[in-house]
Amino acid sequence: MNLANYPGVSISVIRRLPRYYRFLGELSAKGVESVSSREFARMLGLTASQIRQDLNCFGGFGQQGYGYNVAALCNEIGKILGLDNRRRAILIGAGNMGLALANHMRFGDRGFTLCAIFDNNPERIGIRAKDWQVQDAAGIEAFCKAENPEIAILCIPKDAAIRVANDLVRWGIRGFWNFSHYDLSVDHKNVAVENVHLGDSLMTLSYRVNEL
Amino acid sequence: MNLANYPGVSISVIRRLPRYYRFLGELSAKGVESVSSREFARMLGLTASQIRQDLNCFGGFGQQGYGYNVAALCNEIGKILGLDNRRRAILIGAGNMGLALANHMRFGDRGFTLCAIFDNNPERIGIRAKDWQVQDAAGIEAFCKAENPEIAILCIPKDAAIRVANDLVRWGIRGFWNFSHYDLSVDHKNVAVENVHLGDSLMTLSYRVNEL
Repeated sequence: MNLANYPGVSISVIRRLPRYYRFLGELSAKGVESVSSREFARMLGLTASQIRQDLNCFGGFGQQGYGYNVAALCNEIGKILGLDNRRRAILIGAGNMGLALANHMRFGDRGFTLCAIFDNNPERIGIRAKDWQVQDAAGIEAFCKAENPEIAILCIPKDAAIRVANDLVRWGIRGFWNFSHYDLSVDHKNVAVENVHLGDSLMTLSYRVNEL
Repeated sequence: MNLANYPGVSISVIRRLPRYYRFLGELSAKGVESVSSREFARMLGLTASQIRQDLNCFGGFGQQGYGYNVAALCNEIGKILGLDNRRRAILIGAGNMGLALANHMRFGDRGFTLCAIFDNNPERIGIRAKDWQVQDAAGIEAFCKAENPEIAILCIPKDAAIRVANDLVRWGIRGFWNFSHYDLSVDHKNVAVENVHLGDSLMTLSYRVNEL
């Protein structure tokens, strides 16, 4: 497992890395071998100097005047992000959002292995989503103790999330991908939490349509 | 319709506004009337000076030493974001993601009215999601001409999105909320596009779990 560690890198820098990785992957898939820092910056809507500064947080890559080697930089950023770690994850809540993630998200390419899906609604228990069959949420504790997943993906309502988060941390969960609209990190300091707020993106669209 | 216009504000500032709005809304719901700029900054994981700088882009709010009036600032930011505009939107693609949005997203609070849902899969046409019944995608053109929606929410695969985006722009769509993994803004310059890349958030989680 890749345990690169770059203390003190700001969250805004970290949040740009997946975009760099995604754009480099697309270039690589098109057969592009190298990209000038200016052209890469233009694609991303940033300046070449911003990108250089970001990459310098991790040791820097590429040489002035030579641009970036697409495959090598993509590979390096993937390592920084820990995408080859395949950390074990469980998904809780097999509603539409949970099923959308189970069916469409390429977990393996993003650092994770989805191991199991749980729901407490009898109508959902037993549903198949790709390689998984939805299990009864009553079995989460036993599953955690037997299989030691590190990550929980919460696709459940806020109230339910508040209820289960404590248990999950007690059962060994160290990271949450959280769609529940409850800001877990407030109550749980020693876990990593990515809150997904789709409404924020929609409000940004509202602003941007106004500006047209 | 509120047509506030603040040219030249950077996209990173704009992207922080929905978070400010969301946190202020939560404070307001708890009955909090005012918040010091330091306390508000701490909640958001920013500095008071960053927030002040951001708000100054829109004229500035609150007074040094008095903190922010929660309800008033929330209201102002909502206006800046255009959340009372209720722009008409159509949703294309009634798979799990599309249905998750239709069932759970509070469009009305985020500046939009969802008017119709379309899909070209006969098994999905006729499905009900909350107030809507999924319509045949063959009717999108007629619907656009009759009802003039401004926004399209794309919950369809990349190839399909590339195919329909041109038509939609021709039929009057000016903004896209795009879950399709195809970067629409590359080909369409005069529309507003919010691409949602859930994989980026998952990769960020991967990095952050590594850092624990």
